[in-house]
Amino acid sequence: MIPDADEAITRDGKALILAYDHGIEHGPVDFEPNPETADPERVFDLATHDAVTALAVGKGVAEAYYPSYDDDVSLLAKLNGTSNLWMGEPDSAVNWSVEYAAELGADAIGFTLYGGSNNEVEMAEEFRDAQEAAREHDMGVVMWSYPRGQGLKNDTSPGTIAYATRLGLELGADIAKVKYPGSPEAMAEAARMAGPAKVVMSGGSKADDRAFLETVASAIEGGANGLAVGRNVFQRENPVEILDALEAVIFEEASVEEALEHTSTPAVADD
Amino acid sequence: MIPDADEAITRDGKALILAYDHGIEHGPVDFEPNPETADPERVFDLATHDAVTALAVGKGVAEAYYPSYDDDVSLLAKLNGTSNLWMGEPDSAVNWSVEYAAELGADAIGFTLYGGSNNEVEMAEEFRDAQEAAREHDMGVVMWSYPRGQGLKNDTSPGTIAYATRLGLELGADIAKVKYPGSPEAMAEAARMAGPAKVVMSGGSKADDRAFLETVASAIEGGANGLAVGRNVFQRENPVEILDALEAVIFEEASVEEALEHTSTPAVADD
Amino acid sequence: MIPDADEAITRDGKALILAYDHGIEHGPVDFEPNPETADPERVFDLATHDAVTALAVGKGVAEAYYPSYDDDVSLLAKLNGTSNLWMGEPDSAVNWSVEYAAELGADAIGFTLYGGSNNEVEMAEEFRDAQEAAREHDMGVVMWSYPRGQGLKNDTSPGTIAYATRLGLELGADIAKVKYPGSPEAMAEAARMAGPAKVVMSGGSKADDRAFLETVASAIEGGANGLAVGRNVFQRENPVEILDALEAVIFEEASVEEALEHTSTPAVADD
Amino acid sequence: MIPDADEAITRDGKALILAYDHGIEHGPVDFEPNPETADPERVFDLATHDAVTALAVGKGVAEAYYPSYDDDVSLLAKLNGTSNLWMGEPDSAVNWSVEYAAELGADAIGFTLYGGSNNEVEMAEEFRDAQEAAREHDMGVVMWSYPRGQGLKNDTSPGTIAYATRLGLELGADIAKVKYPGSPEAMAEAARMAGPAKVVMSGGSKADDRAFLETVASAIEGGANGLAVGRNVFQRENPVEILDALEAVIFEEASVEEALEHTSTPAVADD
Amino acid sequence: MIPDADEAITRDGKALILAYDHGIEHGPVDFEPNPETADPERVFDLATHDAVTALAVGKGVAEAYYPSYDDDVSLLAKLNGTSNLWMGEPDSAVNWSVEYAAELGADAIGFTLYGGSNNEVEMAEEFRDAQEAAREHDMGVVMWSYPRGQGLKNDTSPGTIAYATRLGLELGADIAKVKYPGSPEAMAEAARMAGPAKVVMSGGSKADDRAFLETVASAIEGGANGLAVGRNVFQRENPVEILDALEAVIFEEASVEEALEHTSTPAVADD
Repeated sequence: MIPDADEAITRDGKALILAYDHGIEHGPVDFEPNPETADPERVFDLATHDAVTALAVGKGVAEAYYPSYDDDVSLLAKLNGTSNLWMGEPDSAVNWSVEYAAELGADAIGFTLYGGSNNEVEMAEEFRDAQEAAREHDMGVVMWSYPRGQGLKNDTSPGTIAYATRLGLELGADIAKVKYPGSPEAMAEAARMAGPAKVVMSGGSKADDRAFLETVASAIEGGANGLAVGRNVFQRENPVEILDALEAVIFEEASVEEALEHTSTPAVADD
Repeated sequence: MIPDADEAITRDGKALILAYDHGIEHGPVDFEPNPETADPERVFDLATHDAVTALAVGKGVAEAYYPSYDDDVSLLAKLNGTSNLWMGEPDSAVNWSVEYAAELGADAIGFTLYGGSNNEVEMAEEFRDAQEAAREHDMGVVMWSYPRGQGLKNDTSPGTIAYATRLGLELGADIAKVKYPGSPEAMAEAARMAGPAKVVMSGGSKADDRAFLETVASAIEGGANGLAVGRNVFQRENPVEILDALEAVIFEEASVEEALEHTSTPAVADD
Repeated sequence: MIPDADEAITRDGKALILAYDHGIEHGPVDFEPNPETADPERVFDLATHDAVTALAVGKGVAEAYYPSYDDDVSLLAKLNGTSNLWMGEPDSAVNWSVEYAAELGADAIGFTLYGGSNNEVEMAEEFRDAQEAAREHDMGVVMWSYPRGQGLKNDTSPGTIAYATRLGLELGADIAKVKYPGSPEAMAEAARMAGPAKVVMSGGSKADDRAFLETVASAIEGGANGLAVGRNVFQRENPVEILDALEAVIFEEASVEEALEHTSTPAVADD
Repeated sequence: MIPDADEAITRDGKALILAYDHGIEHGPVDFEPNPETADPERVFDLATHDAVTALAVGKGVAEAYYPSYDDDVSLLAKLNGTSNLWMGEPDSAVNWSVEYAAELGADAIGFTLYGGSNNEVEMAEEFRDAQEAAREHDMGVVMWSYPRGQGLKNDTSPGTIAYATRLGLELGADIAKVKYPGSPEAMAEAARMAGPAKVVMSGGSKADDRAFLETVASAIEGGANGLAVGRNVFQRENPVEILDALEAVIFEEASVEEALEHTSTPAVADD
Repeated sequence: MIPDADEAITRDGKALILAYDHGIEHGPVDFEPNPETADPERVFDLATHDAVTALAVGKGVAEAYYPSYDDDVSLLAKLNGTSNLWMGEPDSAVNWSVEYAAELGADAIGFTLYGGSNNEVEMAEEFRDAQEAAREHDMGVVMWSYPRGQGLKNDTSPGTIAYATRLGLELGADIAKVKYPGSPEAMAEAARMAGPAKVVMSGGSKADDRAFLETVASAIEGGANGLAVGRNVFQRENPVEILDALEAVIFEEASVEEALEHTSTPAVADD
């Protein structure tokens, strides 16, 4: 973790990362709720929203679209990933070199580590190479820190998530992306374990506006520095609205009720 | 995927790839229907047909023949491949380096990925190296995207093929070569998932003229950008006729009936 | 082992290494007894204590804090380590290259070897690369020599610990860090087997002041050249007191009773 | 396969390779029939016979003797090989780099591929590196193409040998060395599958003069471009005689009866 | 094998290698019979004895002591080795690079190959790299050729030892170090199989003066070029005496009786 190494993908120390690596990790099924989102251009357009501090995509998508958006979007190069056709112990192929990511203009790299997997040692060493190469190119480093594999029954327990953020700090990430550990208190503890590294909550599968914003707000309240979100934005009918609402919660200290005014979900009547 | 990276192996955005890697993948048995096709020279001659936008061969064949054909044929260097003597989990040896392919004058590289194989992660990382080296040499990239291995019962289901084309886009291919998913609608969905990357249908084992052309036409109708074909050309008695017919279907928007006029198969009488 | 190669992390030939790699090796649970110690800054502050000859931390923590402490703290870059989420045969990922450690100003490297693990051969070869790279940068080399794995029932037996220190000498460490083998005599034998290489005792889990200092004193008496300690310092309410006491025992030839005067534990009344 | 790349180890397009890698592959047992042949010097002397177009040996033997014979013998550097103490799935260690072979003056490289072995993919990739390095040094490439391993019940069936020669062509060998497939017709088919690459028959274990020469003659008749022979030469009492006879059969279109006149085996009386 | 490549570690074509890698291979237990021998300095002093043509040690010991002895001792850098804590299939970690050995002034490298182990292929390839690097630095190459592993019931049978010396020659060693095959005749056959490469007998576990010298004398009589000895020298009360005796047997063609006069063991009375 190097202070300010992530400044190209944060704003006032906070991050709203739009993640769009579902085409590789989950496949076309994630585009079914809103079929037009299979078109990367629509997501690049969303990434120009003021709220979005970085867009996380894979190499092929970046090659095709980023040259047209490099003035308006900060690129978080998601280096590794594997299809869910993979039946083996959790693992992730390194699909993109740091050097080529830098050449394409990436501002930061993203890298998954499955702590606890039988592939943890190998993945950690791949992360080492990527992290140190990123330093040579002055790029920030985001770790998708997802404990997973044999022996991990509940990978969102407070202790597991706190360990996950700590691994981010110890191994050299500037930002650790983790799942929500279930409560603001647990998120606070996870954030504390990351020390000076930032922590962003992973958006997860789609929830309704209120439930989603309440989780985000409680994470921020707990000390998270932001959100990495994919399906909860692009699977919605009006993704711009939810980005407006997220901007309010994350960057403007708005309450969930205030934020909901940006959406078509009615705020709870004051009575 | 880089726009126009494949222009040396396409014509008006469409591709007819003559594939001739059967000597390694299947062995001499594929030459039995038409024994003279064991001679690579005959296939190189076919590749000079106007319809053919690229010829896909292995290193040893390219070394021997390409120097005599480099003015008339675009070379698609098929980098990996494995004999069917192999009894292990689906895998493919990288038999040819990108650097040497470039030295021999290749216009593009071809690379097989068996998504879902226990070797998927390793193959994806080999693809990464090849893809990025191809970019340095301004060569296009074609992925033979063939999900295969444990857990994949039907590797031509619409969902699998759509995932296969998407992997092509995400991982940096300019063209994804996939099996026909059974219907024009499924092919259309697969093409849509590839976004700006092109999709070519794999020709598969030999069918009669009409059946073959109808499948090709329906794939094109569905949005495929062309065809990669081997046995359905070189196993025929008159491969030039079928190339004429394919040219009509792929590049000239001809109907199957019109295309059949190029062949010895009688078109259906108009009654 | 090169004479004086460790001089930047020793004082008068003795060492008191403050180890703080628990965040990766054990996770947040080690910070629970004294939650503020999750903050690396507190431990860096402790490392400025005169008694401390080096601070052992991982890459990410060094990146964040060492630039502010490089005048006052000697950095022992702990290159490898693995979370305890790992369920496989004992192994340790190399998370930090020697080159990058040198760039950050490290004075020495630390490296774990699990002799007897099924990963011993691979770890020894990784150690080779790190050790030789350290020589190029004039950095000292400390081996965490921890026999562990199948076939090792008691990894602190005198014979095992003597073998562990000898491996340190044979493979090129300047200092071998080993567990206490149970008696001053066994420690003396272990120190003798290390020849000119130094031996430091590993502090282990927290003990009360007297018991801890007596073990340290008996190790020093047995010929150990010092101590590597983490939890027995930072998990205490007053870590400075125990550092004062350790300084007395290790560097000033004080008795345990004399040393205990630095702590809140009453020395035994003279009667 | 590059035309003329093998010219340093062929004569008029034909090859008689004296193979002497038995010391590694089989061990001293192969020298028992004629104990003096354990001395490499005797075999180097045989290799100066006009009939011999190349001598295939391992690195250590080449280091010791080739400097004295480089004017009179063409060196075929057999790069890989493994002792028969090996009990694992068929595999072959790469014992010699192409660069060092070139430095010692080698004219060509020899490389074993066990198609169908669980190590086929790895061996093919090692072959790739060796083949491409050989091209940089303008050395010819000979593949010992020996399908072997799980699933291959009869590794000399016509189909297997035809596949073996084809793999030689496809992967970039100039000459494929294969076992005799049982008939001139099968050898003809195997030669046809190699296209412009040459095919040499592997001599195998010792047979009597007539039987051996008849097999060689039928292989040549079938289209083989020559022979790679070890035991059938050096295990004989008079190896020069059999080389004379082989020269007649391979290069001078002599009949077996004519060739036998070079040996002590009486030709069949004309009656 | 390159003629004279071993001249820095031989004398008149013969070798007496003092081996001192027991600290890694066997651990402290080998120093128990003569505890002072745990101190490498004592063994370096022994190595200055005129009889000793080279001292074989590991990297760490060489780093610490060789700079003080480089005028008087020839250094044989034992590159690989593994502790006997290792429970896996026979294997040996490469603990020392050739480049660093050269930098420390080594005259030759030593490398173990376990022919027949499941790790034979990997070890042979590691040997290749080390052997070729040694050539670049004009260093001799000694192979500890020790068939071992599954399928090898008796690793000192005449056939196994003859195969072991042959592997030394074939793979590029200048000297093969093997166990005594039980008789002078078997040693003669093993020496013959090594061709121009030298063969030294491995000293093995400690025997009494007469028995040990008789074995050495019979090996020399059988054609061995010398001895590599550790425990039979340094575990004795008076190691200088036995070195005097060995010098007589190996270099001065003395009988065992004559040699015994150098020791405290009475020679057999002449009656």
